[in-house]
Amino acid sequence: MNIGLDMMGGDFAPLEAVKGAAEFLSSATANVHLTLIGDEEKIKEHLNSYPIPAGKYTIVHAAQVIEMNDHPTKALKEKQQSSIAIGFHLLASSKTDAFISAGNTGAMMVGALFSIKAIEGVLRPAIGAYMPREDGTLGLLVDVGLNADCKPENLNQFAILGSLFAKHILNFDEPKVGLVNLGEEEGKGNILAQATYPLLKQNKQINFIGNIEGRDILLNKANVLVCEGFTGNVVLKLAESIYDIVRRRNIHDEHFDRFNFEQYGGVPVLGVAKPVIIGHGISHAMAFKNMIRISARMLEIDLMGKMKSSFLEQA
Amino acid sequence: MNIGLDMMGGDFAPLEAVKGAAEFLSSATANVHLTLIGDEEKIKEHLNSYPIPAGKYTIVHAAQVIEMNDHPTKALKEKQQSSIAIGFHLLASSKTDAFISAGNTGAMMVGALFSIKAIEGVLRPAIGAYMPREDGTLGLLVDVGLNADCKPENLNQFAILGSLFAKHILNFDEPKVGLVNLGEEEGKGNILAQATYPLLKQNKQINFIGNIEGRDILLNKANVLVCEGFTGNVVLKLAESIYDIVRRRNIHDEHFDRFNFEQYGGVPVLGVAKPVIIGHGISHAMAFKNMIRISARMLEIDLMGKMKSSFLEQA
Repeated sequence: MNIGLDMMGGDFAPLEAVKGAAEFLSSATANVHLTLIGDEEKIKEHLNSYPIPAGKYTIVHAAQVIEMNDHPTKALKEKQQSSIAIGFHLLASSKTDAFISAGNTGAMMVGALFSIKAIEGVLRPAIGAYMPREDGTLGLLVDVGLNADCKPENLNQFAILGSLFAKHILNFDEPKVGLVNLGEEEGKGNILAQATYPLLKQNKQINFIGNIEGRDILLNKANVLVCEGFTGNVVLKLAESIYDIVRRRNIHDEHFDRFNFEQYGGVPVLGVAKPVIIGHGISHAMAFKNMIRISARMLEIDLMGKMKSSFLEQA
Repeated sequence: MNIGLDMMGGDFAPLEAVKGAAEFLSSATANVHLTLIGDEEKIKEHLNSYPIPAGKYTIVHAAQVIEMNDHPTKALKEKQQSSIAIGFHLLASSKTDAFISAGNTGAMMVGALFSIKAIEGVLRPAIGAYMPREDGTLGLLVDVGLNADCKPENLNQFAILGSLFAKHILNFDEPKVGLVNLGEEEGKGNILAQATYPLLKQNKQINFIGNIEGRDILLNKANVLVCEGFTGNVVLKLAESIYDIVRRRNIHDEHFDRFNFEQYGGVPVLGVAKPVIIGHGISHAMAFKNMIRISARMLEIDLMGKMKSSFLEQA
């Protein structure tokens, strides 16, 4: 498998991307070839300090970089030689099998939506984010920002996509799916949640356990938490801010350390035909290593094929 | 002023309600008369241990109680002799000037919406909840559950109501209003947030500072945070759950102690013509005392009159 890695994305690129790639390959079991996309000279310079075995990687030079505050759509169009534009081009033309970047999140979203086809039957791809629980497990919150407005059918599909990711990547046997809502009882919610509930209840491809209130998002009540991308985004960023507060207050606690979202590497785009992972801006080597590991795992177990089958089955 | 207090609401009623009332009156500067609504015998029994000066209170007997898991609308209709039903009846007929309960939240919401008139011009009342900040101040998040679906004009009104509460009760000079959103830039958001932004921007009665992301909800960026009741409710309950986690993990920290929402007493219903405060189920004496204090303050400064003028001005 050939995984494309944007070497220019993130606050500490390309150094940390090179370190992460080297670390991954030194411990990898799968047969992974990395396509390192970015400024060739800079990448080679860092490879002197953090060598990767020849034959394990290819460098694809990218003369441009989409900066963190560039306008996503505009930048993707105007910076055709940027590492993100080239990364999606390589993925779309099957030169690579997956694409990872810790660069401009908006550009990654736009690229994932418009360069890569959605899995047949998927109306809207979504982004899943991890929610740390006190028992050490991770929940998956879908969507966290790709779809600010949703229809009930979208949320129903997020539940299927999230369940497959939770089962095969997070290792939950029959992932419990909860609908994020303002009350526990059936019938509660805004119009969207009220209309989504019966769809989830009837969906035989998932293990629906009912509504999940805000107080239970950080508890291990459901493994997959479904909501539109507006609420999901607010929840994710609020959860991320908890770690900042904990750190500022000099609190050291194993569980709250798990609110350091950087360690999870990045969040998967679910519903597109190929693995795309969007990394955190402040990604270090560990984050890059984890993003490569997760996309390798997604390819290894053919998660995309499994998702495809699910939607064929549903149709 | 005559403040109605539901003595039967909350997990530790009527004992803690009696203690809270007694504590308030022992330190009150305003001329407050309390109407204690509930089981007369039980109230009198506790008054033996926690005496309140005669002439400072009246007991209104209520033979029924709306339990925490009673269906709100049904219970209010069927339990006409409940402390909540009587409490709203006294308020609606101007026998009291304010009403406080830590009982069934749903019944309190239904009662506030349907027993008490909205301020003229207010399309939908809303509930404001406090958000603790590291600098010791409190932000106000509006709405946190009364309106699961909103129109832009509703959010615009929440901004006015929240600003007046933040100015006169939370003592912010020109409260900064933020629109809860998934991105900072103007133009971001779901359809509702995108349509609300220009209304807030044009609203001369508020000090609008733009969009507020999830990561900034717990920071002192805005004093009033506006959103529909769905997202607001999820955010509030998520914030409440942080205190549970902190306590379970035996972390002692002055700031995180402020996530103990019980200490704030209760949340105000904004936009109704008379002060209504909804308390937390686990309210203790301090919570009751604070709820009485806040409703006394709302009456003292004629907050309802100020809200009324604002909406006349807007019309």
